[in-house]
Amino acid sequence: MAIHHAQAGEVVSVQPLAGALAQTKTTTLVKSEHLEVLRLVLPAGKEIAEHQAKGDVTIHCLEGRVTFDVGGKSIEISQGELFYLHAKEPHSVRSIEDSSLLVTFSL
Amino acid sequence: MAIHHAQAGEVVSVQPLAGALAQTKTTTLVKSEHLEVLRLVLPAGKEIAEHQAKGDVTIHCLEGRVTFDVGGKSIEISQGELFYLHAKEPHSVRSIEDSSLLVTFSL
Repeated sequence: MAIHHAQAGEVVSVQPLAGALAQTKTTTLVKSEHLEVLRLVLPAGKEIAEHQAKGDVTIHCLEGRVTFDVGGKSIEISQGELFYLHAKEPHSVRSIEDSSLLVTFSL
Repeated sequence: MAIHHAQAGEVVSVQPLAGALAQTKTTTLVKSEHLEVLRLVLPAGKEIAEHQAKGDVTIHCLEGRVTFDVGGKSIEISQGELFYLHAKEPHSVRSIEDSSLLVTFSL
């Protein structure tokens, strides 16, 4: 099945998933020429090993609580908080609670 | 006074402003090499005349309800909804309720 990305002007929900979180997979919501937006779904205890993005990236916590390890420093965000990372900054992720993150990449 | 933009890794709140909305100005939260993120504060009835962005842009409604007019089409978003526009797409904005928007520009 082809994955549906929103078209320009198409409205998508980024409400907290709450009870639907466990049944929801990570999804790319937008892929335009310059930006990619995904909703990263992380059940409690999930870990993502160290990786990096090619461009700058913003991370907005839609629900839950997660910790990023970036250059030996811990960054914890919970619902309604946002930070950004420079391109090629290695980071790993651990979710403390059931969480979803809105992640916006510059391409 | 110099305007404070968040540094990489610095956590900023993007919670709804609610009762503080009327006293809060539009703020640039992030300005990195490739991305700019601002919180656009729009009291009910506010209009922004037609304009365009140089790069692609995502618009995420943090609270309230606003209408975008884009190429003769109306796009209404309310809290927890997001859409994107292609670079150089002319658009105007009207807020229906007290609203704040998280707007992410690719630079």
